[in-house]
Amino acid sequence: MISLTSDYEEGAHPRILHRLEAVNLVKQPGYGTDTITDSAAARIRAACACPEAEVRFLIGGTQTNAVVIGALLAPYEGVLAAGTGHVAVHEAGAIEAGGHKVLTLPGEAGKLSAASVEDFCHTFETDGNRDHMVHPGMVYLSQPTEYGTLYRLEELKSMRAVCDRHGLRLYVDGARLAYALACPANDVSLPDLARLTDAFYIGGTKCGALFGEAVVVPDPALIPHFFTIIKQRGALLAKGWLLGVQFDELFRDDLYLRIGAPALAAADLIRAALEKAGIPTAINSPTNQIFPILEDTRLSSLDRVVEGSFWEKPDPEHTVIRLATSWATPLSDAQTLADLL
Amino acid sequence: MISLTSDYEEGAHPRILHRLEAVNLVKQPGYGTDTITDSAAARIRAACACPEAEVRFLIGGTQTNAVVIGALLAPYEGVLAAGTGHVAVHEAGAIEAGGHKVLTLPGEAGKLSAASVEDFCHTFETDGNRDHMVHPGMVYLSQPTEYGTLYRLEELKSMRAVCDRHGLRLYVDGARLAYALACPANDVSLPDLARLTDAFYIGGTKCGALFGEAVVVPDPALIPHFFTIIKQRGALLAKGWLLGVQFDELFRDDLYLRIGAPALAAADLIRAALEKAGIPTAINSPTNQIFPILEDTRLSSLDRVVEGSFWEKPDPEHTVIRLATSWATPLSDAQTLADLL
Amino acid sequence: MISLTSDYEEGAHPRILHRLEAVNLVKQPGYGTDTITDSAAARIRAACACPEAEVRFLIGGTQTNAVVIGALLAPYEGVLAAGTGHVAVHEAGAIEAGGHKVLTLPGEAGKLSAASVEDFCHTFETDGNRDHMVHPGMVYLSQPTEYGTLYRLEELKSMRAVCDRHGLRLYVDGARLAYALACPANDVSLPDLARLTDAFYIGGTKCGALFGEAVVVPDPALIPHFFTIIKQRGALLAKGWLLGVQFDELFRDDLYLRIGAPALAAADLIRAALEKAGIPTAINSPTNQIFPILEDTRLSSLDRVVEGSFWEKPDPEHTVIRLATSWATPLSDAQTLADLL
Amino acid sequence: MISLTSDYEEGAHPRILHRLEAVNLVKQPGYGTDTITDSAAARIRAACACPEAEVRFLIGGTQTNAVVIGALLAPYEGVLAAGTGHVAVHEAGAIEAGGHKVLTLPGEAGKLSAASVEDFCHTFETDGNRDHMVHPGMVYLSQPTEYGTLYRLEELKSMRAVCDRHGLRLYVDGARLAYALACPANDVSLPDLARLTDAFYIGGTKCGALFGEAVVVPDPALIPHFFTIIKQRGALLAKGWLLGVQFDELFRDDLYLRIGAPALAAADLIRAALEKAGIPTAINSPTNQIFPILEDTRLSSLDRVVEGSFWEKPDPEHTVIRLATSWATPLSDAQTLADLL
Repeated sequence: MISLTSDYEEGAHPRILHRLEAVNLVKQPGYGTDTITDSAAARIRAACACPEAEVRFLIGGTQTNAVVIGALLAPYEGVLAAGTGHVAVHEAGAIEAGGHKVLTLPGEAGKLSAASVEDFCHTFETDGNRDHMVHPGMVYLSQPTEYGTLYRLEELKSMRAVCDRHGLRLYVDGARLAYALACPANDVSLPDLARLTDAFYIGGTKCGALFGEAVVVPDPALIPHFFTIIKQRGALLAKGWLLGVQFDELFRDDLYLRIGAPALAAADLIRAALEKAGIPTAINSPTNQIFPILEDTRLSSLDRVVEGSFWEKPDPEHTVIRLATSWATPLSDAQTLADLL
Repeated sequence: MISLTSDYEEGAHPRILHRLEAVNLVKQPGYGTDTITDSAAARIRAACACPEAEVRFLIGGTQTNAVVIGALLAPYEGVLAAGTGHVAVHEAGAIEAGGHKVLTLPGEAGKLSAASVEDFCHTFETDGNRDHMVHPGMVYLSQPTEYGTLYRLEELKSMRAVCDRHGLRLYVDGARLAYALACPANDVSLPDLARLTDAFYIGGTKCGALFGEAVVVPDPALIPHFFTIIKQRGALLAKGWLLGVQFDELFRDDLYLRIGAPALAAADLIRAALEKAGIPTAINSPTNQIFPILEDTRLSSLDRVVEGSFWEKPDPEHTVIRLATSWATPLSDAQTLADLL
Repeated sequence: MISLTSDYEEGAHPRILHRLEAVNLVKQPGYGTDTITDSAAARIRAACACPEAEVRFLIGGTQTNAVVIGALLAPYEGVLAAGTGHVAVHEAGAIEAGGHKVLTLPGEAGKLSAASVEDFCHTFETDGNRDHMVHPGMVYLSQPTEYGTLYRLEELKSMRAVCDRHGLRLYVDGARLAYALACPANDVSLPDLARLTDAFYIGGTKCGALFGEAVVVPDPALIPHFFTIIKQRGALLAKGWLLGVQFDELFRDDLYLRIGAPALAAADLIRAALEKAGIPTAINSPTNQIFPILEDTRLSSLDRVVEGSFWEKPDPEHTVIRLATSWATPLSDAQTLADLL
Repeated sequence: MISLTSDYEEGAHPRILHRLEAVNLVKQPGYGTDTITDSAAARIRAACACPEAEVRFLIGGTQTNAVVIGALLAPYEGVLAAGTGHVAVHEAGAIEAGGHKVLTLPGEAGKLSAASVEDFCHTFETDGNRDHMVHPGMVYLSQPTEYGTLYRLEELKSMRAVCDRHGLRLYVDGARLAYALACPANDVSLPDLARLTDAFYIGGTKCGALFGEAVVVPDPALIPHFFTIIKQRGALLAKGWLLGVQFDELFRDDLYLRIGAPALAAADLIRAALEKAGIPTAINSPTNQIFPILEDTRLSSLDRVVEGSFWEKPDPEHTVIRLATSWATPLSDAQTLADLL
């Protein structure tokens, strides 16, 4: 049985595990004040071509989103997100628990357009009741999106321009960033993200680490006392070096830039097989997630060999499932599935 | 110049002001522990035919919504509301500031249907990711709605049934309740609200008081230590008797049940004139708010005599405005406007 | 029976009630955007000799403290207060409900010393774990204090200097400010408060208004979008002009500066009688609160004529009670009590 | 150089690391829904003799305290803790950020007495202003305390009785629980904790795990939807099996009950040497933390060989330092230090 239900089913890249073993009993100071964590942060600053950035290591995606969004918004501000955005749907209200409204806009295949943000801001700014309303304070994007789609560099630049016009911060959730960076269709680099956003995070959990996300704040003055904010949110790992080790290894020899490649190879193979078999996909995604629209009869025969996640039922005879490959997916698994199609 | 911009432009009903003067220098204990407040609460319990209810007096609508919703929800729960609901749009994120998501559903003319709540709950309960999502915990309605429309008794009963099936609380915002109670088209009484909801409030600010809203909790066990919750939210008036006096007067001789009548008489007169003049309304509202769709040329001539609030622009040549009458609107003002039409 | 249990037992100064009656049915725009409120704010700016100040009118003390403190602190900051401070004890955790710790220091007769704040900051700044701790962000004082004592101008200046040295904001709760301003022992004026604090409030509820507190923010840039913050906290009165009218009247002809005088005359008379009768006081307070230490036998005979509030029991035979006079206390009441002593 | 600065300087017990390696590439479902996590929970329920308990795995101590305390308190309740309690001082206000006041009481050597809690509750319940105050809702203890001291079983029973009398929940922070369980002076077992508390956590981070704390809720009905609460707080690990593996291993063969033994052996050796050398300790702690009062001259010579943490300066010539041994401290390190003394 092949499982393609999600991209966080495996543990860590072998290099990370070896490194953890090597330093396991070497005493380290707590809370990320160790030299390995320093080294990881330095490597990330270099990869982002942003020598002034503050880099902090948190544990998971929902936590990172809640901490960063809370740190960047004033109490009267909310965050703009696509209705399908992770912060809007699948974080159990973590953003609201921190006091902020998620202002949802319709997206397209998971993406928010600069034009829709511009419209929203214009409508808000010309509303006579705007002082009785939540102020838009930030745009939240994910790269790749929850649907595996990618923002183009031009789109990001337009979004930055809208943010500048309306005093919004721009934040990018990079839970699956490695699968964008390894994708030929992608033209947004780490330095682009550092140049265009107010904060973004480089996902570890889904991209080769046991766990962990690296937050990059290009202008550290935007979040004074970030360390204490992280502590207050219960997001400070006592043995911070566990995160340092993982990201130090992910950014040694540019491993992070390549680690998504096997996922994309597997996904491309499956996409080619789907096309050959005349099976359409619900979303045209170039990264590690694939959303085939399957006849239910075919689905039940596939089910014996491959496990995906239920996505939606567009009509009574068809089902959309999500297949997610990962850095650890063997190409042979994809080939088995392709042969079956 | 006649202003019909809102229903809270005037002060209090003369009876209230006289009563305030009469007791102004009579010493009263603080925080609503006085006998006048006791009397007001007793009158409201009687009017609601709910002798066990807890009645508390708060100051304004946004405050009341935030306090009651916060008191009735668990941290992981959100409140279902029409997308046009006051809590969803015009309270500057007060519900989210208290940690709860407002889960919006499309409404019709300001109203939420039991069927749409049922659908939402069904979808939530069958979603494999539901434990990663905000749980629906409450339905928020307003009677009349922000669009002046009314829930029928049958609709409220259906909503109660849905709430019972899915473990939701039902809360009704009665900021303009007097304008429902005085409306011939209305068939929902105070005892109905007490029987069918978990909490509701009887609006004072827009209905003859200087300020104040009376919260009714039919089963007080639902909100233990409500007094302290109110205090913590900064919603406890030191001179609570100011609220007691106002509601004691509003519920003496059933004044509250009649106080909306002049507003409805004025509104009906305007509605008749609009119909005669062939001017359609955007929303078919039977209470004290009217939403005529005016040609812009006509609007500019009206503007010299009557002031309303801009509502929306359905097309380049027309504008919808809102006209709101109140308990204090002279019928002559409505007649002037009718003559003009 | 004479009640001296608190200074908010009566309604409003007659001038205020007359003014309310006069404008009761004059239509006003909502939320304090009316001209009467503008006038009140202008008078207060003039009285504070601070033409740039932002003046906002809120409803009660706990609400005002929670809103202002929340607006002035970063999420990782707490507020320093005397252990007896109102925010520390009697606001049901309103400050914590907004996410901030109240950092209590021992006070003396309700007062916090600049030296104790300096010590606290020094200890904090030299603590190796400071980044794991709540940062001091503000000093909260009350003038007069909860014990009726007064800060001297020199003391306030020293406190300001400490705040400047350590990056703290200085906030003064003036719930009973009129009783300081009318007290001969006081040397702190409104312009002093405007010059030395980052925010303070001028109490109305206990000082002649029906209700209401006027917040003064000398440098408005410190609290951007204060209006929306107030709305979000449920502290925005729909008929804001009710507050405007009251403060416009309180600051017309400098009424506010004189309104406390009758309270002080009554209190001085009682203090003189206590001294003559050889009855000590627990706290040496020059304003409208008196804390006699009474033998229990004497207390029970007094109880038939005068009602105060229980304060504490220093030993089995004595009781400290609090007597509070107000702007409305007849001198004859004080004389009756004096005669009794 | 020997470091005894803290008990979380090393990684994990070798058994844990081997187990992680073994399952690293075996696919597991997310969020702790895997069979390894089930097994870990089952082992903990067995060790606690509490077959009904809900067991959840969180990541760190501050996070666990904030999540559990928030889940067990009503909005108007606070948590009673010793002034030296971790939640009161070193969690950057995480409890207040969740809306709850920490009500501190003086402790003795880090311990809170049942009598002081009883006194507090009695004073609160007889205070005429209690409805304006934060209600005590919970007692927070740590076992061992931040000072390494232990609650005796009789003390815990008394605390439980006080909690029952006053409607308080009882919560125990077991960040260092292994060092209590391995200590001959300890008479409180895991089944005792499960029987006497409403919730407690079994510390992993300081007791042999890479990271992780196991929360035990003996009566799961006390915290409905705990999973969603954890998610909302950003405390749900995507690869929950990482925690499952660690606790499954810690509770296989009762490893957790023995894992603290080397720390105690090392600490006892140091304590004996201190006594022999006539060096007093500031706190009489029987577990893995030692607080010698050193002459500053001696301290500077020790400093070359052993690193501890500065604790306090009782007088100009002496310094108290904290030495913390751990499960990984070699006895030879303790011997080196002992020889030096």
